[in-house]
Formats: sequence, structure tokens, C-alpha cells
Amino acid sequence: MKILGIDPGFGRTGIGVVNACGPDATYVMHSVIETPKEADFSQRLLTLRDELRRIIETQKPDAAVVEQLFFQTNVKTAMKVGMARGVVLLTIAEAGLPLVELTPNQVKQGIAGWGGADKRQVQEMVARLLKLKEIPKPDDAADALALAIVGGLVARRPGSTPPTSPS
Amino acid sequence: MKILGIDPGFGRTGIGVVNACGPDATYVMHSVIETPKEADFSQRLLTLRDELRRIIETQKPDAAVVEQLFFQTNVKTAMKVGMARGVVLLTIAEAGLPLVELTPNQVKQGIAGWGGADKRQVQEMVARLLKLKEIPKPDDAADALALAIVGGLVARRPGSTPPTSPS
Repeated sequence: MKILGIDPGFGRTGIGVVNACGPDATYVMHSVIETPKEADFSQRLLTLRDELRRIIETQKPDAAVVEQLFFQTNVKTAMKVGMARGVVLLTIAEAGLPLVELTPNQVKQGIAGWGGADKRQVQEMVARLLKLKEIPKPDDAADALALAIVGGLVARRPGSTPPTSPS
Repeated sequence: MKILGIDPGFGRTGIGVVNACGPDATYVMHSVIETPKEADFSQRLLTLRDELRRIIETQKPDAAVVEQLFFQTNVKTAMKVGMARGVVLLTIAEAGLPLVELTPNQVKQGIAGWGGADKRQVQEMVARLLKLKEIPKPDDAADALALAIVGGLVARRPGSTPPTSPS
């Protein structure tokens, strides 16, 4: 089972692909989709859609995982991230891919076994689980790999809930 | 020149089409695109995209006008409106339509000659300008017609700025 993790952003969207999931996950690829700052909003969204579509066609994942974001630093940022997120969800739906949405805490709990883990700890666990020599760069791509690793656990078992911290 | 005004929303997107623009604008149609509450986010965005695409194919407008929104009541709303807005901008770009973005104040100034005009005054002016017996319903569709009327003035003159209040 191949899982595509996506961390949507307006300027930069993180992409991470793994095979299998959870502790058995193996690394496939990571990248970022960047949209040109000088282009207008519509063209940037079109670039994001085209690049994401190309990755889906090339990688042929079985499911996609996107972070469920409720809070952003401010309303203007939320609106821009929302636009990118809308285009990402649309592209996933168009491709007929099952979608898993995870909260940031579910990702942290799944990866580091502790919802309070910081960003750096999660990224170190991503590198360790995937047997990578270095933490994948940039952060958006590392976050997308974390989403793919944890989301695969949910996608594998229809109706199952994401992992919670060990009791 | 045929102008398509769009007032994007997650649950309901207002649509208004006029011929010509400004004081010469004539009414073509208005409607709303509603997405089923019981469907998941991706499917709702796909419905919005499909319906908007169908309207563009049927009406064949020369330009599209969307409100430029910076503020929303809260971050969660901004994120959801942002997702719908992203899909609307993407669909416009896909169709190769020129896009005009107007601030709420530009619409009010253009329609009612006064940036401080309230929603009701703008809607009454829309009905009067388009020689409609009643204010178009629902509000989202009336707002979309207002966008189309004012946006057409900008789309007509490349490089021109939207109307400001009379000095």
C-alpha cells in the first residue's frame, strides 16, 4: 500500500510518499511544490493542481493524507492556506483517491507516541522510521512524510481511528 | 461583453451573469450552487467545481469577477471560505477566463456610489440597474450580480482601476 502525504500551503506544499505504513513504512520520495510568487493567485493554484496531479499520476498512491487544520496564526493566512487546501482536496477527489484527514496531534501521537512531541522530535522519528541518514528537507516535506506514515495506518483499516498515545 | 460574478462560499456560492457593464448592464441570470451538507469536504468541492464549470460552459462569459476577502468572522470560517474560493479561482483559471478581484468597498462604491452603503442598499441598486421587479434571492446571488455589474467596468478597460466614490 502506497501512501501520499500532503502538507498544503499557498507558497509551498510538502509532499511525502511511503510504502506500507506505521512502523513498517519504507521511504519512497519527498518533494515540495512551490508556486511562483510573481504569478497571480489563480495561476498559482493552477500550478499547484497541475504538479499534484502529475505526482499522483507518477506515484499512483492508494490513498492520500492531509492535515486537518483548524487554527492558523491569523485570518488572512487561514484564507490563503484554505485556498491551497481546497485545491489539494479537489485534486485528490478528482483522482478518486481515498482521503484521510489527521489532526496535528494525531500525527504527533502516531509518530512519536506522544501528542506533545515537538516538531523536531517528530522529524527525527520520521528519519529513524524511514532509515534516512538525515532529516528530510524542507520541513513541509518532512511533515508530509509524517502524515503518510501515520495516515497509512488509518487507510489500511477502513473505519479504524488514528492511533492514540499509549496508555 | 458578458460578465460572470461569483460570491464563493463553502455551503452556498452565489452566481450572477450580466451583459455589458456599469449603468448599461442588463440582466442575464442568477443562481446559487449549493453543496450537500452530508457529503465530505472533497466531494463538496468537486460539486462546486463541476457546477461552476457547467455554468461557464453554458453562459460563455468573457470575464469572471470574485470578491477579494481579507476578513472573516473567524479563522475556521476563513479556512472554509478559502477552500471554496481556491476551487473557484482554479476553475476560472482552467477555463482561461480573465479574473477581476474587487474588495467589498469597491463593489459598494461602484453600485451605490458610496463605500458605506449597506447590503440592502446595494441590492436595491442591483434590482434598479438591472430593471428587475424584485431584489434577486438569495443574498449570495444578488451579491454576485453586484460583482458582475461593477467588475465589468474594470474588465472592459485593461489596466483600469475599479470605480471610486465621486469626489
